[in-house]
Amino acid sequence: MTGFDRAPRLAALRGLLDTHGLDAMLVSRAANKRYFSGFRAMDDEESSWPGTLFVTRDATCILADSRYTEQAAIEAPDWEVILTTGGMAQDLPPILSDHDVVALGMEAQIVTHAEWSGLAEAASGVELHAMDEEIAPLRLRKAPDEVDAIGRACALTDACLAHLVEWIRPGMTELEVAWELEAYFRTHGAEGQAFGSIVLAGARASMPHGVPSEARVESGNVLLIDFGCAVDGYRSDMTRTLFVGEVPGRIGLAHDAVREAQQAAFDALEIGVNGQEVDAVARNVIADAGFEPYGHGLGHGIGLETHEAPSLRQSRPYTLEAGMVFSVEPGIYLPGETGIRIEDIVVLEESGPRLLTNSPREAQVIG
Amino acid sequence: MTGFDRAPRLAALRGLLDTHGLDAMLVSRAANKRYFSGFRAMDDEESSWPGTLFVTRDATCILADSRYTEQAAIEAPDWEVILTTGGMAQDLPPILSDHDVVALGMEAQIVTHAEWSGLAEAASGVELHAMDEEIAPLRLRKAPDEVDAIGRACALTDACLAHLVEWIRPGMTELEVAWELEAYFRTHGAEGQAFGSIVLAGARASMPHGVPSEARVESGNVLLIDFGCAVDGYRSDMTRTLFVGEVPGRIGLAHDAVREAQQAAFDALEIGVNGQEVDAVARNVIADAGFEPYGHGLGHGIGLETHEAPSLRQSRPYTLEAGMVFSVEPGIYLPGETGIRIEDIVVLEESGPRLLTNSPREAQVIG
Repeated sequence: MTGFDRAPRLAALRGLLDTHGLDAMLVSRAANKRYFSGFRAMDDEESSWPGTLFVTRDATCILADSRYTEQAAIEAPDWEVILTTGGMAQDLPPILSDHDVVALGMEAQIVTHAEWSGLAEAASGVELHAMDEEIAPLRLRKAPDEVDAIGRACALTDACLAHLVEWIRPGMTELEVAWELEAYFRTHGAEGQAFGSIVLAGARASMPHGVPSEARVESGNVLLIDFGCAVDGYRSDMTRTLFVGEVPGRIGLAHDAVREAQQAAFDALEIGVNGQEVDAVARNVIADAGFEPYGHGLGHGIGLETHEAPSLRQSRPYTLEAGMVFSVEPGIYLPGETGIRIEDIVVLEESGPRLLTNSPREAQVIG
Repeated sequence: MTGFDRAPRLAALRGLLDTHGLDAMLVSRAANKRYFSGFRAMDDEESSWPGTLFVTRDATCILADSRYTEQAAIEAPDWEVILTTGGMAQDLPPILSDHDVVALGMEAQIVTHAEWSGLAEAASGVELHAMDEEIAPLRLRKAPDEVDAIGRACALTDACLAHLVEWIRPGMTELEVAWELEAYFRTHGAEGQAFGSIVLAGARASMPHGVPSEARVESGNVLLIDFGCAVDGYRSDMTRTLFVGEVPGRIGLAHDAVREAQQAAFDALEIGVNGQEVDAVARNVIADAGFEPYGHGLGHGIGLETHEAPSLRQSRPYTLEAGMVFSVEPGIYLPGETGIRIEDIVVLEESGPRLLTNSPREAQVIG
């Protein structure tokens, strides 16, 4: 049981019922289940159906099969647990009928097409409305207790990096490093990792989402580490590109450009600015230094999910508001040669951005 | 790169094009992406779109955004990598048009309703057909190289349990035990865990899918451990219910009943029998011993996914065939008191079932 105040969260969700003329909302996204109820859906569950929340103006229910009923009752003591024995199309129609639901909000970006179309057929009198874009904003501006939890995850990530910088030696494999950092998180109070760590040596660092392998940390190139943990469900995400021994000057120049781009982005951050503009600022610094800018976005929101709104990228306008927490992660990728990325988490406050990750941003040399 | 022979797998997938009058197949399920191409999608990716396979009679393509293009080229060297910059509805229509696709097979149980309906609108001349139930059987009967990989994962799981039985002491927390077993897997050659381990002490063992907590291993009750690992992508899954010191006689009787139920299920396994019947055999043994039988199914198939076809449960008829690999896991749950489950993995061969997990099935006493 955590101390998060869920009453205002539920009130905001019920507000959507009125705004959109709905009788009930079905909540399928794992992070939203936890946000509204405290129920911790397993991330690796095959289907989103177990533990679905069903919320009307006066009922709060968790639909759980027998594997989850006891857990749901413990984690979400104020919620009514309804036992399910089949899938959405089998079990939901009688519940909708019991609650006189004619218009139902759902998460079309989570519910599969098979589930949605099955329900549409089995409950043919009920209108199904996609509400993803309406629910997402409820988690967009973080409450102080959420910023605090993200901050604790970030502090643990800083401590982990400090340990790694002392611990890593040339000749270790990417997998050994990935394992050491995961072990650090788990033995220092994290719930787990925020995502599968990206630990890439040398030329392999040019893969923005590469998977750690048996490749070894070698002097004369970089070791890129992109990692994070979860504390009370809230995530951290940080990238550092360490220099292993002495690296060629061109890699040093690329690191300087990325660092400068990130600082320019920090300087451009303020309430009311558009994420696209901040992305452009960082991109231009890299282009001016004579490098090809990163192909991904500059940043992403973070909270109960590692990637959530807002998005700071060329293709997506997003006006930044107080309470938003997001990454700032420019990079330069030189296929066949190396990759550089620096990533930090910031919370945007009335007074400007405040960094939640605080590891050194200059190139650290190891080995 | 693993040595799996993917040519017959691809031929079988293309066979579906003819059988169902399709021009192309879109493969979105992570396990299927790896099965057909070798591309390892990240399990924790928010969307199934990155790394989607697009297969026609003469093309094999991986649709990947810039984060994955290099990885896809390395892991699936025979496949053409097509760079995507947007979502399914933005990027797929021109590809469909280039390949003259009029009828497209898709996985409705993976693709979200938002993606499906977006594509249906953006490519209005293309018929979309759900092919989940047609693709799943292709992975149902395991080839010898697959049984070998599952067997290696199971052997590592046996070795891990032997270590745990020596290592666990009363007073340790569930999380400490969960962490130790994960560390064992990762330092002994596994890719990772097959799923989040279930480690439950005492009365908490009555939650079939409970999450490990700070609760401590205490004498006089059980410690239930349900865990598995992945080797070359293939999974293991095993449960043992250890006795911590001396336990009340009723718990011993429940363990005897579960073990007897599992043995009766093994004895009932043969080619051509229905999974429902085997489930009923185990269930009846437990009822005859005076306990309430488990609320879940007796077993589930396992391979590149921890839970896949066939299902051995009351509600689902499934005729068992040679080459199928699945769990056999009866249990007894006494809410507020304790839980007992024994789970092993078997491959069904011409000569009968062969156990791939081989840890002792009698109650082991620890502490």
